[in-house]
Amino acid sequence: MLGLHLTADLRGCPAQAPLMTDADALRRFCLRAVADAGLQAVGELFHPFPAPGGVTGMVLLAESHLAVHTWPELGAVTLDVYVCNRGADNGARAAALLATLEAAFTPAVVEHHRVRRGDPAA
Amino acid sequence: MLGLHLTADLRGCPAQAPLMTDADALRRFCLRAVADAGLQAVGELFHPFPAPGGVTGMVLLAESHLAVHTWPELGAVTLDVYVCNRGADNGARAAALLATLEAAFTPAVVEHHRVRRGDPAA
Repeated sequence: MLGLHLTADLRGCPAQAPLMTDADALRRFCLRAVADAGLQAVGELFHPFPAPGGVTGMVLLAESHLAVHTWPELGAVTLDVYVCNRGADNGARAAALLATLEAAFTPAVVEHHRVRRGDPAA
Repeated sequence: MLGLHLTADLRGCPAQAPLMTDADALRRFCLRAVADAGLQAVGELFHPFPAPGGVTGMVLLAESHLAVHTWPELGAVTLDVYVCNRGADNGARAAALLATLEAAFTPAVVEHHRVRRGDPAA
């Protein structure tokens, strides 16, 4: 079983954008982005924090998971897209999903990590 | 904002262990392990898949998140513990939580990754 885990850590995101503080808007955006990327959501949970009002959200995928954390007071967002590749190579779908989410937060700076997981050769 | 993301990819886990297939048992175990590690759960969602019966579970933390995926048919489990370090260094708590979860699945082999996230110096 091989998996691909992509992370993006965003800075310089406009704090007033609805996706930074509105858990329901972020939930709807994430679910649409998951579907548009050709991945399958099997559950989701989005939690708004009290002021300054960040949001933590996760979408359980048939292919593994998506996680989003926002910190409006820092203009920061972290994104995780983790897909397993049983039956199909989901790497391109994961990259497309991450790119959609990144673009929505209009960050000034993005730091990426890419981890291959569960590699029998590792 | 600095964060620490720990992953563990387990192989050789006994497939008949309840934590591999019983979503509610896995949920209870994870919530207890989170509390024992000194981290704070703010929500959780565990999803059982149809036969061969893996489970995907996530715990939203005040400090970020925990994710667990099991594949009983492969004897495989993947674990993520991601903590931000605002206000306190949660690295030791994250490591303790990961160690507790790893031990519970009694894997034959574990592959670890450790990613520092949102590092202003990166």
